Amino acid sequence: MEKKISDKVINRLTLYHCILDDYINNNIEFIASKQISSLLNIDDSQVRKDISILNNSGKCRVGYIVKELKKSIEMTLGFSKTKNAFIVGAGNLGMALAKYDNFTSYGLNIVALFDNDTKKIGNTVNNKLILDINKLPNLSRKTGVDIAILTVPRNYAQSTADFLVKAEIKYIWNFTPAVLSVPKDVQVWNENLMGNFLQFTYKI
Amino acid sequence: MEKKISDKVINRLTLYHCILDDYINNNIEFIASKQISSLLNIDDSQVRKDISILNNSGKCRVGYIVKELKKSIEMTLGFSKTKNAFIVGAGNLGMALAKYDNFTSYGLNIVALFDNDTKKIGNTVNNKLILDINKLPNLSRKTGVDIAILTVPRNYAQSTADFLVKAEIKYIWNFTPAVLSVPKDVQVWNENLMGNFLQFTYKI
Repeated sequence: MEKKISDKVINRLTLYHCILDDYINNNIEFIASKQISSLLNIDDSQVRKDISILNNSGKCRVGYIVKELKKSIEMTLGFSKTKNAFIVGAGNLGMALAKYDNFTSYGLNIVALFDNDTKKIGNTVNNKLILDINKLPNLSRKTGVDIAILTVPRNYAQSTADFLVKAEIKYIWNFTPAVLSVPKDVQVWNENLMGNFLQFTYKI
Repeated sequence: MEKKISDKVINRLTLYHCILDDYINNNIEFIASKQISSLLNIDDSQVRKDISILNNSGKCRVGYIVKELKKSIEMTLGFSKTKNAFIVGAGNLGMALAKYDNFTSYGLNIVALFDNDTKKIGNTVNNKLILDINKLPNLSRKTGVDIAILTVPRNYAQSTADFLVKAEIKYIWNFTPAVLSVPKDVQVWNENLMGNFLQFTYKI
């Protein structure tokens, strides 16, 4: 990648990608920037500007070639490089994320889930095994997986994060509503649901 | 609220709020901006700047008074004004969100869940009833609830959105990986999980 792409642009490009996916499923070959902008209720010029940063050659008189544009987004955002991750916490949220088939097409591969509930251990969800949390450090070292998706209850968030840090996990996608304390070399991405909700609703 | 607060600031303020919550649970009375900034791995000056936009009077020699600062954030972001919402789709994700107790303390009240699966209808989750989806239009009109949290499978996303629009739902918090087509007077907030993940990982 030549230049740093801003978070907002990455976010919009993944939404364009969703739309293109739908178009392909409906066998539609071309798309105009206005079709994208009207679906997302944003400015048409914004869509054209975002697309201009891609190495996209699929421009034609009636718009963009859907398949080419989709491929350009995938190249730019690096979907082709698969990232392996563990889900830590096989409750409702962990199960939901394990079933979220869209992840795979964006290069995120869930290797396994982990829990400490013996009733869950050994079960599979979406063809992924639920393993004993104590097996995580060993499996992480053997497979090189260093991304954990944290979906445990809030009360266990920090102690589980400490456990993951010891197991040399380097990236934590935190779905718990707790702010985690971790060493500098571990990166945490807070999936701050309430923050997102408030951005949406604080004017209501 | 006097001035528009940017999305990034709202997002950070909710994270500060989480930290303050933890401090209160641990009976800690004061907090320095540096404690917040180091937990979130951001600049200390950023934290002080964010706090300066609040109507916060709880500043003292050793930092901020935890309880006062928490209250200031709540006032500024309008947590006190409860927003009622329906969860549409009682699968794993819908169930996880219904159990997400943090919502209540941020002013989001889940009134009920809806599904079309007769095996689920009539059950409760976290004291909230799962109702027949066909009852939604009537209940929405009777209660005035106009926020829907959409957690149905991707294939049903658009048809369910059409149904919600007909039922006069005005705000859709979309957790499905589909881009929805809705009339101009309906607002959609895409909880774009893949976009968030890629912001976090595209440099890995």
